[in-house]
Amino acid sequence: MKTNSLSPVDPDYAARVKDSFRRQKLMAWIGAELAGLGPGQCEIRLPCRPELTQQDGYIHAGIVGTIGDTAAGYAAYTLMPHDAGVLTIEYKMNLVAPAVGESLVARGEVLRAGRTLVVARADVFALKSGAETLCASLLQTLMTMHGKGER
Amino acid sequence: MKTNSLSPVDPDYAARVKDSFRRQKLMAWIGAELAGLGPGQCEIRLPCRPELTQQDGYIHAGIVGTIGDTAAGYAAYTLMPHDAGVLTIEYKMNLVAPAVGESLVARGEVLRAGRTLVVARADVFALKSGAETLCASLLQTLMTMHGKGER
Amino acid sequence: MKTNSLSPVDPDYAARVKDSFRRQKLMAWIGAELAGLGPGQCEIRLPCRPELTQQDGYIHAGIVGTIGDTAAGYAAYTLMPHDAGVLTIEYKMNLVAPAVGESLVARGEVLRAGRTLVVARADVFALKSGAETLCASLLQTLMTMHGKGER
Amino acid sequence: MKTNSLSPVDPDYAARVKDSFRRQKLMAWIGAELAGLGPGQCEIRLPCRPELTQQDGYIHAGIVGTIGDTAAGYAAYTLMPHDAGVLTIEYKMNLVAPAVGESLVARGEVLRAGRTLVVARADVFALKSGAETLCASLLQTLMTMHGKGER
Repeated sequence: MKTNSLSPVDPDYAARVKDSFRRQKLMAWIGAELAGLGPGQCEIRLPCRPELTQQDGYIHAGIVGTIGDTAAGYAAYTLMPHDAGVLTIEYKMNLVAPAVGESLVARGEVLRAGRTLVVARADVFALKSGAETLCASLLQTLMTMHGKGER
Repeated sequence: MKTNSLSPVDPDYAARVKDSFRRQKLMAWIGAELAGLGPGQCEIRLPCRPELTQQDGYIHAGIVGTIGDTAAGYAAYTLMPHDAGVLTIEYKMNLVAPAVGESLVARGEVLRAGRTLVVARADVFALKSGAETLCASLLQTLMTMHGKGER
Repeated sequence: MKTNSLSPVDPDYAARVKDSFRRQKLMAWIGAELAGLGPGQCEIRLPCRPELTQQDGYIHAGIVGTIGDTAAGYAAYTLMPHDAGVLTIEYKMNLVAPAVGESLVARGEVLRAGRTLVVARADVFALKSGAETLCASLLQTLMTMHGKGER
Repeated sequence: MKTNSLSPVDPDYAARVKDSFRRQKLMAWIGAELAGLGPGQCEIRLPCRPELTQQDGYIHAGIVGTIGDTAAGYAAYTLMPHDAGVLTIEYKMNLVAPAVGESLVARGEVLRAGRTLVVARADVFALKSGAETLCASLLQTLMTMHGKGER
């Protein structure tokens, strides 16, 4: 990894990220929305619904991972070139409190952006009666697919 | 961690796991089914559907993680006592090929079962025209919630 | 996990951590020192030495992991009870830049402290000519060994 | 990732790996040796020594990670081209039993080899009185540094 800059090389990164997000059919299906975007940063919100729960009535770890992966991945994608695609290589997530409340919010940020690989992390919070509780933390590696833009 | 045995302490583990699986509303909603179960082992199958895809038309990494987490978690749950609940502490997943095909299958197995913590792993395969391709590998830590059975 | 407080339950946590650090023979052998300590926080410093390098002359990933694991682990140990021992359950580390310079510094901090499990993270920096470069980030799970104090 | 073959493209991979291993000063310093090598596979052995221990007298998690990282990394390096270098991107390790005994052995194997990225895993065993106990399991991502051979 050569560069550490969090300034986007593509001035139109926001439109590119929003377009990619819209093509993720899973996001619409679970009801997730893109709630914030900045250079190296992305926020995803997800209203809690019974269909997304595991056996104890909490939001399933896999869904918590889904929005954490998406938030960290699009945080990375903001810094990639105009003609690039983004690919998740791997992530690791710790679940630290039950994901229960009115909605979840995942906040992703880039730790280090190299030419090919980007390392990002995301924290996922549960919102309940106006209070935020950290429920998961995720550390992720992404790949810049140069010349393989998504459109 | 004290014991390494993969022999179940609860002879009725299969009924207990199936009951827990049924209470996971997310499993029914995405169309996943419990396809195999043994001491320290569990298999989950998921037909591929457009609603589960990311921007390139592959099954979303978060959904791959969902069935990997569930397969490894229930592999662990087969070895837990009758009156215990199961909780995912954390997992890490590598995505090694696009998750695309007719269906996905996640095979979980226990690496080490201690009194409180269990370490499990799952491999997720994409099935296409009769061939299986490894698309993800997951390593996970679970907690035995003694005396907190799910019923 | 029930509590989220970063206030130590053991007012003598610093003496307890220092004593444990001294009994880690590996720390003395590689030349690492305990450079800072606070509630839920720990800093470890390691002068770079040729004996610690991999094939390219950088400090070996395993040694970067060693001080990252130790910094995050003792950050967690500051919050544990007087009569408890600490055990690393697992960690994941991303290497984001070559570990090369005069010395490395690992800064650990607790993300969430539960009764049994603690989740912590550490960032490892390379110090060269007065500048710090992030070279690794680590996310870790630890266990509180109640009643199994190290002395 | 495009290919899944475990057949080495470099017929002289063994000499190349051994040469790289010899240049890892850390391996000599801790007393580790390259004990086995095959296509997509590598075994590292490490006699247990007091200098490598943590506060309870077990081999330090960081040293367990060191030989796990090295075994998985050289398993990957066996499959890389003649003129390539190898770089660890990240790894995650679960510690499942105390690392204590006469020696440790780490066995690495490749899960998936792509053109740029390789995913490998390693299991680390403690050898005591002729018995092997699994003490750690590691999942790792590596990068092929094309045209950046180590010599």
